[in-house]
Amino acid sequence: MILDRASALTRFAAAPVASLATTRPTGGPHIVPVTFAVDGETVFTMIDSKPKTTTALQRLANIEANPAVSLLTHHYEDDWSQLWWVRVDGEATISDDRAPCRLLQDKYQQYRDNPPDGPTIVIAISDVTWWEWSG
Amino acid sequence: MILDRASALTRFAAAPVASLATTRPTGGPHIVPVTFAVDGETVFTMIDSKPKTTTALQRLANIEANPAVSLLTHHYEDDWSQLWWVRVDGEATISDDRAPCRLLQDKYQQYRDNPPDGPTIVIAISDVTWWEWSG
Repeated sequence: MILDRASALTRFAAAPVASLATTRPTGGPHIVPVTFAVDGETVFTMIDSKPKTTTALQRLANIEANPAVSLLTHHYEDDWSQLWWVRVDGEATISDDRAPCRLLQDKYQQYRDNPPDGPTIVIAISDVTWWEWSG
Repeated sequence: MILDRASALTRFAAAPVASLATTRPTGGPHIVPVTFAVDGETVFTMIDSKPKTTTALQRLANIEANPAVSLLTHHYEDDWSQLWWVRVDGEATISDDRAPCRLLQDKYQQYRDNPPDGPTIVIAISDVTWWEWSG
């Protein structure tokens, strides 16, 4: 069970993928799955070299215009008593700092041979929200 | 492989859960997992009776202020060559129509005994975007 903010954040951090929501300059939402790592009260995600159709990524343009972001991790299974989700809201900045790469390499073996080479999105966590069926 | 818009939408529709992103009246993004069903060029999701902390749901307030929504389905596994995601963008309206309940009951056996009783979010699909590693 998720008992408190700390255990919610621990469960969030352990998820292999999150959905990153940002706001487009036109005001509508944008959402994309991301790999990520958590260190204390900060979430890091980096633009990696997975095949992409463009390097001018919408998520970066959105954050430059509006730094408010929301990240969701969730678990689904047919037994709905096992459902849970954790959402992290925060303010994002875009950085060229390579140091967070190590955090991502600790979590994802794929990055050890092929480290992400794009900019880093650094998210200062403001709110952690969670839900679980049994909670 | 996702070959075209139609096959992307078919894969989206088959996913058991989507992340629904909306824009808060304050301008920041909001994201929550939802059950959903697709019929043609429309996505339906209903407020169900899974335990919630409030019935005054943020997603409904957001849609009333800004109908632009984005829905994401994705697949993760440790073998990244199997990764894919499909995003559907559209305009949402909130309805008291009960008819979409049947679509959700066809997809989710849990709703056959316990149908969703809240309002329906009806999303007219405008854009379908997809990605897969191998694409």
